[in-house]
Amino acid sequence: MENDKNLDNLRHSCAHLLAAAVLELWPGTHNAIGPAIENGFYQDFDFGDVKIVEEDLGKIEQKMREILATWDNFQIKEVSAAQARKDFAYNPYKLELAEEFAKEVKAITETVQGNFLDLCKGGHLENPKQGIKHFKLLSLAGAYWRGSEKNKMLTRIYGTCFPTQKELDGYLNMLEETKKRDHRKIGKELGLFVFSNLVGAGLPLLTAKGATVRRELERFIVDEELKRGYQHVLTPPLAKVELYETSGHYPYYKDTMYPPMNVEEEKLILRPMTCPHHFMLYKSQPRSYKELPIRYAEISPQFRYERSGELTGLMRVRMFTLSDAHIICTPEQAKQEIKQALNLTDFVNKTFGLVKGKNYRFRLSLGDRNEEKKYFKDDVAWEKAENTLREVLKENNEPFFEAENEAAFYGPKIDIQMKNVSGKEETAFTVQYDFVMPKRFNLKYIDKDGKEKEPVVVHRSSAGAFERLMAFLIEHYKGAFPVWLSPIQVQIIPITDRNIKHAQNILEQLNSSNIRAEIDVRSETMQSKIRDAQTQKIPYMLIIGDREEKEDTVAVRTRTGEDLGTMKLDQILDKIIKEIELKSS
Amino acid sequence: MENDKNLDNLRHSCAHLLAAAVLELWPGTHNAIGPAIENGFYQDFDFGDVKIVEEDLGKIEQKMREILATWDNFQIKEVSAAQARKDFAYNPYKLELAEEFAKEVKAITETVQGNFLDLCKGGHLENPKQGIKHFKLLSLAGAYWRGSEKNKMLTRIYGTCFPTQKELDGYLNMLEETKKRDHRKIGKELGLFVFSNLVGAGLPLLTAKGATVRRELERFIVDEELKRGYQHVLTPPLAKVELYETSGHYPYYKDTMYPPMNVEEEKLILRPMTCPHHFMLYKSQPRSYKELPIRYAEISPQFRYERSGELTGLMRVRMFTLSDAHIICTPEQAKQEIKQALNLTDFVNKTFGLVKGKNYRFRLSLGDRNEEKKYFKDDVAWEKAENTLREVLKENNEPFFEAENEAAFYGPKIDIQMKNVSGKEETAFTVQYDFVMPKRFNLKYIDKDGKEKEPVVVHRSSAGAFERLMAFLIEHYKGAFPVWLSPIQVQIIPITDRNIKHAQNILEQLNSSNIRAEIDVRSETMQSKIRDAQTQKIPYMLIIGDREEKEDTVAVRTRTGEDLGTMKLDQILDKIIKEIELKSS
Repeated sequence: MENDKNLDNLRHSCAHLLAAAVLELWPGTHNAIGPAIENGFYQDFDFGDVKIVEEDLGKIEQKMREILATWDNFQIKEVSAAQARKDFAYNPYKLELAEEFAKEVKAITETVQGNFLDLCKGGHLENPKQGIKHFKLLSLAGAYWRGSEKNKMLTRIYGTCFPTQKELDGYLNMLEETKKRDHRKIGKELGLFVFSNLVGAGLPLLTAKGATVRRELERFIVDEELKRGYQHVLTPPLAKVELYETSGHYPYYKDTMYPPMNVEEEKLILRPMTCPHHFMLYKSQPRSYKELPIRYAEISPQFRYERSGELTGLMRVRMFTLSDAHIICTPEQAKQEIKQALNLTDFVNKTFGLVKGKNYRFRLSLGDRNEEKKYFKDDVAWEKAENTLREVLKENNEPFFEAENEAAFYGPKIDIQMKNVSGKEETAFTVQYDFVMPKRFNLKYIDKDGKEKEPVVVHRSSAGAFERLMAFLIEHYKGAFPVWLSPIQVQIIPITDRNIKHAQNILEQLNSSNIRAEIDVRSETMQSKIRDAQTQKIPYMLIIGDREEKEDTVAVRTRTGEDLGTMKLDQILDKIIKEIELKSS
Repeated sequence: MENDKNLDNLRHSCAHLLAAAVLELWPGTHNAIGPAIENGFYQDFDFGDVKIVEEDLGKIEQKMREILATWDNFQIKEVSAAQARKDFAYNPYKLELAEEFAKEVKAITETVQGNFLDLCKGGHLENPKQGIKHFKLLSLAGAYWRGSEKNKMLTRIYGTCFPTQKELDGYLNMLEETKKRDHRKIGKELGLFVFSNLVGAGLPLLTAKGATVRRELERFIVDEELKRGYQHVLTPPLAKVELYETSGHYPYYKDTMYPPMNVEEEKLILRPMTCPHHFMLYKSQPRSYKELPIRYAEISPQFRYERSGELTGLMRVRMFTLSDAHIICTPEQAKQEIKQALNLTDFVNKTFGLVKGKNYRFRLSLGDRNEEKKYFKDDVAWEKAENTLREVLKENNEPFFEAENEAAFYGPKIDIQMKNVSGKEETAFTVQYDFVMPKRFNLKYIDKDGKEKEPVVVHRSSAGAFERLMAFLIEHYKGAFPVWLSPIQVQIIPITDRNIKHAQNILEQLNSSNIRAEIDVRSETMQSKIRDAQTQKIPYMLIIGDREEKEDTVAVRTRTGEDLGTMKLDQILDKIIKEIELKSS
């Protein structure tokens, strides 16, 4: 904690230094706020008519180092509101802040360094000249003053600062690596998906290659869920608004739902959730305790209208396809069903080489009993539901932590918290305990004693949304998918045109073994064909020259540059088939 | 032709007889029109406050036979308009018709039989008593006077009449058979799909069983298309309205499209067609002649808002999923691509046991050069396109016929005309030659000579919409799907509770061979379990009693009632696996 505070002070000090440098380089510029943030800091500026570009960052950094030489310590003075108003009359942003500070505190803090005066709430280094050594400006962005679209767009400069050069280098390397792994960049290089202005923002079009990855993922999930006793169903991705009024989603999620469509006698809406559709299947006939648990699963297209500023490649889209399921069971069965849901999650994650405790952990998201607008009022039910989830996590000795006020409106949940390539933890998908929807939809079953009872619903995903999963896996594998997921598994490389015919025979043999292969018939050198196949992250290259053709063999190379030597086709076929079956990389 | 006219006269005469009988049974009833139609006739009535029901049809038939005994010949008289007005003053419908007839002809025809007077345009039997022998009333329906919702709803009585009893019986049997095969009836009995008022009309929800059939069909089509060089892609089921304005679909199909959704900066609409999406993939990079043909395929959800009156189970729905593809090729490649598309159609149809020439044939649908609103104006291109399609059909010696004015607005097409269970021919799906969209979307490729050229597009489906295909197959197979499509392939029937454990072992072995099986653990007799499995059209029943358990065998029965005797599990497993692989029934 103390360390965090020191780091924040360091970075906030560096933000002051950045402001001083910019004001010296572009007099008349107004600085606004400049806080420390996770992994660095930023400082907002109103540059007036001046346009600055990424190339200016070096110059600013240079100026920061010059000024820094003169900053021995932070001179802090506390002034009255009237004085602050006077000092910052020229800067409308600081003036606005000064008015606010005046309402909160008696004395307002100003820092003075040489001829640079700033207004702030404090949190500085004792000795900036000694402390601020290892810093770097990173990027430029636009940012509305106070985050509101109604205000002026300011220029935000991001930077970072660490106590040691080693830490700074480590962070910059990680940034570099994250950039290289960016699924938008790799997706383009490997030709996995495109966007179209005419189709619309946030609506990716998967090419044959991207759709191959997606199809393999879908079939993997569907087949695994069928094995585990899920009923895969297929329900329409739209419904009457009334369905979502009944569920309570409509008022609750209205802002991110697409608008209703009025047609003939109906008012239809694209679904943001699958649960009500599955409830309609459940209610299509009377149910007995003997049928429970019923596990409805679906590869479910869902529609949420994300704001354009938040769209990110495949990660944040306006239509996604969830590996969704709703388990309708007796309250007694819930615990076992949740355990099995987590077990499936572990199985799927393990298939992708993700290690529990390292790559992901669980978050128990609890409801705030006092938040009656956000949470269904039934303290006893909440208590029971939360305990059930907690018991599951404890009994299985899962790595988890608890978070207040993060539940769904219909019950508490277990979030699968996944670390992305830059080490940031995000909720990938969830397992939820729902005691509200059964009431809203009047779900019932006839129990052993002949009495009508209310089931509970476990909402869960096994792999999240396929769009997001693909984005995650592209970054995770850096585009080098394991063989079973690779859009092209084998590149056949004939050395000369003479060998093309034989290459086609081999292609047919690969195809009839359900291996995805292509022949590179271009008039390029073998070396450049190998290089291109490696760039395309194709796991295996089978090279065929006159000798191989005569001996009925193939020379095998891998995308990592390994030369596996010459072998019979059957030999490498067996190896590839086995790798596909085992889903090994 | 003469025969058709005789049949029409017979049926129209029978409609008069029906009117006479009803007017005698319910005096004060007004009859409206009563034409011969395909397979029979109808007669519309205004019954006033009287409500008649299906059960009344027998009584009416009885009365028809009584009256018929007195009808030796039709007495026709021609009267003036004034006389007709006087004669039919009591019947507002006939009065309206009389006014119309008066505008067209000088003398108005009235028929008189005993005390029954009718107004009509003629077309009767010489000797009704001799001719009208083999008739039957079939059903009741509501029908607006003159087909307009603004008019009064009348009661329509349907009936049929044939020259011989054999023909009548044949037709009634066919009707009976069609009713038994109705996919809505069988779908309910087998639990394949349901509808929900809260979800909306025309939006079926597939249960696990229905979704299994659908999944098998989809995977079959996708895998076959991949083998044949299609690129399966995945594009969003909605887009900006501009996309469909560019394609020309929006003005053209606007009435059956869902309304646009205004969101943030965009106006989005659910797609009625996939082609523009595929064009966006094509346009995402420059294309060379070396890449052509590009065959984009997609299992594509599409949305058309059918009027509620036209919705029929899975056959006519408000969202369907097309086995869609767009082949972008040079004009020289088009013929070969169309041949291959028809070849795939034949392959798919053959898999379902459909015989070309018997179950389906082709229709060459041509464009009318003068219909400039409906067809893109380019006579030379139309000529060329139509010739290409005609040549394909002739060169392959396909069973086909030509139809004027049935083309798409962007080009001529070959319709796959499929006979349904009642022998009626309908367009199942199409192969289209499109020379318009490449212009609208400015599709180009760089040819051998380095010049930019315009490709053509072949729009085609391989199996039509999956919803419709399922409806068709349910009726075709009468619910008894071939093994590969059967939702449950094997029912395991333990004779006593003692045998349940062994049954579970067998279930596991079946599951690990990817055979869909269930155990019937109910406390019912073996006979009733077999009967229920047969009703559910489950291909195989494996019966396990103490003897089978001891000898490690199973007793095998089929849904058709065959007793295959006792065998080793491996033996029946091999048989079933082979049938699944071969997709035999």
